[in-house]
Amino acid sequence: MDVLQRTLKKIRRTDEEFLLIAQRRLDNLTKPLGSLGRLEEFAKRLVAITENENPVLDKKVIFTFAGDHGVTVEGVSAYPKEVTPQMVLNFIRGGAGINVLAQHASAEVVVVDIGVDYDFGDLEGLVKMKIVRGTRNFRRESAMTRQAAIRSLQVGIELANNYAERGYKIFGTGDMGIGNTTPSSAIASVLTGRRVSEVTGKGTGISNASLKNKIKVIEDGIRLNKPDRNDPIDVLSKVGGSEIGGIAGVVIGAAANRIPVVIDGFISTAGALVAYCLAPDTKDYMFAAHKSVEIGHKAMLDKIGLRPILDLDLRLGEGTGAALAMIIIDAGIKIYNEMATFGEAGVSNELQG
Amino acid sequence: MDVLQRTLKKIRRTDEEFLLIAQRRLDNLTKPLGSLGRLEEFAKRLVAITENENPVLDKKVIFTFAGDHGVTVEGVSAYPKEVTPQMVLNFIRGGAGINVLAQHASAEVVVVDIGVDYDFGDLEGLVKMKIVRGTRNFRRESAMTRQAAIRSLQVGIELANNYAERGYKIFGTGDMGIGNTTPSSAIASVLTGRRVSEVTGKGTGISNASLKNKIKVIEDGIRLNKPDRNDPIDVLSKVGGSEIGGIAGVVIGAAANRIPVVIDGFISTAGALVAYCLAPDTKDYMFAAHKSVEIGHKAMLDKIGLRPILDLDLRLGEGTGAALAMIIIDAGIKIYNEMATFGEAGVSNELQG
Repeated sequence: MDVLQRTLKKIRRTDEEFLLIAQRRLDNLTKPLGSLGRLEEFAKRLVAITENENPVLDKKVIFTFAGDHGVTVEGVSAYPKEVTPQMVLNFIRGGAGINVLAQHASAEVVVVDIGVDYDFGDLEGLVKMKIVRGTRNFRRESAMTRQAAIRSLQVGIELANNYAERGYKIFGTGDMGIGNTTPSSAIASVLTGRRVSEVTGKGTGISNASLKNKIKVIEDGIRLNKPDRNDPIDVLSKVGGSEIGGIAGVVIGAAANRIPVVIDGFISTAGALVAYCLAPDTKDYMFAAHKSVEIGHKAMLDKIGLRPILDLDLRLGEGTGAALAMIIIDAGIKIYNEMATFGEAGVSNELQG
Repeated sequence: MDVLQRTLKKIRRTDEEFLLIAQRRLDNLTKPLGSLGRLEEFAKRLVAITENENPVLDKKVIFTFAGDHGVTVEGVSAYPKEVTPQMVLNFIRGGAGINVLAQHASAEVVVVDIGVDYDFGDLEGLVKMKIVRGTRNFRRESAMTRQAAIRSLQVGIELANNYAERGYKIFGTGDMGIGNTTPSSAIASVLTGRRVSEVTGKGTGISNASLKNKIKVIEDGIRLNKPDRNDPIDVLSKVGGSEIGGIAGVVIGAAANRIPVVIDGFISTAGALVAYCLAPDTKDYMFAAHKSVEIGHKAMLDKIGLRPILDLDLRLGEGTGAALAMIIIDAGIKIYNEMATFGEAGVSNELQG
């Protein structure tokens, strides 16, 4: 049995008993019952995920996977594909949005070249796990071989295992890849069953005419490749991308290691959806960072059954939303661990009337 | 001219020119235009509020005002009023939700006794600015004198001036007061013109029968006291509360000192609405922390014209939402100050096609 199958087999639902244990503690803290809303939900879920009644999030990491897309020749993006390696260099130097927000969240950023169409040489600080030099144009042929798609998942799993072993307590996902809203919309359409036009938006900011073209390109690609919606790996290989596979792999690896994983925005959710369709129990380990501006995002979140934490009109990717959401999840853990109980504080919790 | 009138006279709108200056910098950072959504809005507004092209939020403070309410004898709250001083002691000892979340946000908490019906003696760490020992039951008489209401506003202004002088860069508001959703709903009804039943919710968690009673109590109080909706101080004194006045005063003082102020939830927004009705330009200095579960919250935010930053089903008060929102606003400032520009990073920002 290969790494992927072995890892998928390890994933199981979280145990409801731990939710109840955590709820009892939360209900004894000096506040009206349930008044910290979703912060309480996050604390409970963390207890259940880690099976630890005093979870801590002292080591956080965001995996930002970079890959290129052959489909950019069809004019689906506002930016030239040279921007992918340029932004990878920006990540390594610490000048990008994800660097600033990860630092704000006290999280490390791990930048992974999983499929950039550029040779970075021995660039220090970059994790080199390239499985393709960009995908092929899925309007003309399959984006990747099935083998490459499986390898992309394995890269994510390997990283998840590695960082789990090193004691990291929460993962975040992120992406960089000019053109990658196009494969993400393709995956969204196939795996949610929605029409392409319902799940395709303007990405980094294309015109209305370009959006029409983008929809047509995706429709053509799906018609040509006939991805099998009952086979998520087939969908990932034919109309997906290497960074989306890497993200799906991290989600699978996180769940197998009982580590919470914060899903960034639209592209990351396409990866999470692939993971969910391979192993629905991964859902128990996922946190949806935010509601992206991309119109297809909600359809995917609904399919998995996730409610986003933030709604800040973000559409940058890179893991920026995941970094911010980690801060909020951390707030829930701190409430749970640090607030005084009614007994400790001498506060009455007898309800009147 | 008294302190209040003098302070109100100082308040002016922020200058749009600064929004444009900030937008130019944001548009030159290595990200698609506008892709950091509301984080960009927060950065721009901070630049305009402070008239500083490189704003920093290194010193943050949350003012948590505590006061009691005579109207609790009408059975409007789930908790006995003894909980107000008990929670004040919990704040001072650091065991409450606001302590944990303010620390998470690197903000100080200033706990102000502005109207608790309890003698704290010389309790260290408590700011003693008591103007009433609880309000009177507004179902039977005016909650406060007009004088006391003005004094409550002046207490907030004094604190704002004091912390502005000491170099604090952002203020948050918070409240503690058993029964204080009742005066907040009364203020919401009078100042937004909505029916009491449309702006009254279950507070810390009363039953359906108690909610019906609470609505009746508020309706009776408004009918008896006839607060003048064109005179916000009249409304504050007749059906309001001392901590709500303190919060309104902080908002007024923040605007007069060109300091951003983060409005917590339902009770704080009632205070902010009083400030807004006294001086509509205070709006430019306000950030709405979150969307409370209390049904009347949205009506007040709409009246002022604020869009909440977070939506986490919170209904605790104390300033907990303000603390969390400060972290997000800070993220916007960091993006603005720390991200690389296209030129610095060697990233192409030429759009295709």
